Amino acid sequence: MTVAVHVGPEPVPALIDAVRRAGGDVVPLERAEAIVYYGSDDPAELRAMLHDRIRWVQLPHAGVERWADAGVFTAADPGSAPGSAGPVFTAAAGSYGAPVAEHALALMLAAARGLHRLARATEWGPNRSRELAGSTVAIVGCGGIGRALIRMLEPFGCTIVAVTDSGAAPGATTVLPRARYRDALPEADYVVIAAPATPETRGMFGAKELGLMRTDAWLVNVARGGLVVTGDLVEALRAGRIGGAALDVTDPEPLPAGHPLWQMDNVLITPHSANPRPAYWRGLAERVTANVRRFEEGAPLEGVISSTQGF
Amino acid sequence: MTVAVHVGPEPVPALIDAVRRAGGDVVPLERAEAIVYYGSDDPAELRAMLHDRIRWVQLPHAGVERWADAGVFTAADPGSAPGSAGPVFTAAAGSYGAPVAEHALALMLAAARGLHRLARATEWGPNRSRELAGSTVAIVGCGGIGRALIRMLEPFGCTIVAVTDSGAAPGATTVLPRARYRDALPEADYVVIAAPATPETRGMFGAKELGLMRTDAWLVNVARGGLVVTGDLVEALRAGRIGGAALDVTDPEPLPAGHPLWQMDNVLITPHSANPRPAYWRGLAERVTANVRRFEEGAPLEGVISSTQGF
Repeated sequence: MTVAVHVGPEPVPALIDAVRRAGGDVVPLERAEAIVYYGSDDPAELRAMLHDRIRWVQLPHAGVERWADAGVFTAADPGSAPGSAGPVFTAAAGSYGAPVAEHALALMLAAARGLHRLARATEWGPNRSRELAGSTVAIVGCGGIGRALIRMLEPFGCTIVAVTDSGAAPGATTVLPRARYRDALPEADYVVIAAPATPETRGMFGAKELGLMRTDAWLVNVARGGLVVTGDLVEALRAGRIGGAALDVTDPEPLPAGHPLWQMDNVLITPHSANPRPAYWRGLAERVTANVRRFEEGAPLEGVISSTQGF
Repeated sequence: MTVAVHVGPEPVPALIDAVRRAGGDVVPLERAEAIVYYGSDDPAELRAMLHDRIRWVQLPHAGVERWADAGVFTAADPGSAPGSAGPVFTAAAGSYGAPVAEHALALMLAAARGLHRLARATEWGPNRSRELAGSTVAIVGCGGIGRALIRMLEPFGCTIVAVTDSGAAPGATTVLPRARYRDALPEADYVVIAAPATPETRGMFGAKELGLMRTDAWLVNVARGGLVVTGDLVEALRAGRIGGAALDVTDPEPLPAGHPLWQMDNVLITPHSANPRPAYWRGLAERVTANVRRFEEGAPLEGVISSTQGF
């Protein structure tokens, strides 16, 4: 069965190719039964595109909290018939595991080797390097990113505490359910946040959790800024309650110029660049092709968003 | 057979323990048949310690070019009898492979992810990240460091060109003899220098070799500063003939304040800190214990320095 897919509102050539590679028809919106969405990311834009015959929407990011917060996954479209189940939504979650894990490893190694500090130096100094090897790493939210990170850490003989409700984290030393994530903090040299942004994860790292960490431990966030209470983080860094923070995501984001985090010696900020643009397009195109094939075959789609969990 | 070892001129407790752990006797210099040297690293200091009954000297570093250049390994001690073979010298080479390889990986990932640039930023910017995964990595001088680096690169699916005359580089895509190292340069995204400093390797990266590299490739030096012609490197960086340089070692070293390399956007300098101090002491103590045992058993020592090759 061929599926009629609209790619839009931006007609991105790489995504049109990805649909066609799977044998899908690329059609105008009014004739579509599926949407590969790429646009402003304003939930209202997508909502206005949904019509009764749309059975599936592919979103272009791993994190979909902006659509979840706007109720796109739960509220029936105002124009839909009573009792309509609405379309299935899929995210790109899982397709960016390896590139984002690579960034997390880069940040951990930079922290261990003091690269944040040395990059700013203008003269020679003492050897204050630490080894990543042998460290204890807590991975909070251990999905596709976390699993890829565990593979990358294998040569370093780290003790790895994976926090996930899926129960599956091959290679982890210990697996904890999310409700017990605080138990992973006191022993960790590195706390890597890789959990989805949902109402339940918002602010899961505040003063209390930062206070449980070691004073030489680094917080590494490659998930979403809102999982960390920024004011509490600034306070913990100022007071020396943790060793440092490497943040690919911030709250607010972009982090405004002049924010105290920009000034701190033990902070390294990257501008939501954990997923390099070429890896982003490759991962998204692969996900689109795989899901068009699965839709045609009636197979379960990859990255289906739970309307109750929001990821 | 128990070996009588002098630890000095600095009586370092960790090294005394390492000798005793292997069953060796720690004795004053005049009664010693072996020296575990730790001191100023001035070759004259060691030369003054050598006497007729010294059969083995353990040096405290992986690179031993300062003693080689001073002729310590080749010239007979002025006081020794004619025809005396002189002691066997061993280096710590190979005992620091993993920690130094970890530093090389940290530098490569920093280059890929732009951490040298982002650490200096004081405001948000665009995503200019690259992936390390899938890159081509040339490892010039593939001994203990290079072999450890190949293991660490395994999850990244890199094409690895190992330059070594040993012929053994498990996991490398291609192995080239040192005489052909220039052939590895045109394809490499990262050129990692991990060769010993000898008269043959001095200046092996000058204008010609830098000119063979890609304009987006990074030079990563975790070996010795003298393997790179600093003036040529500065010129190549200024002219955009290579992408950047991550240098743990420099020539001169320490790199003086005000040197042009400190000012460059695409340069990351670490202060000869590839081997963290705890790893240094652990590796050296392990090497001392292993070699005292081997000496007692009449087995071949680890890290024997060739008087002709100087490493």
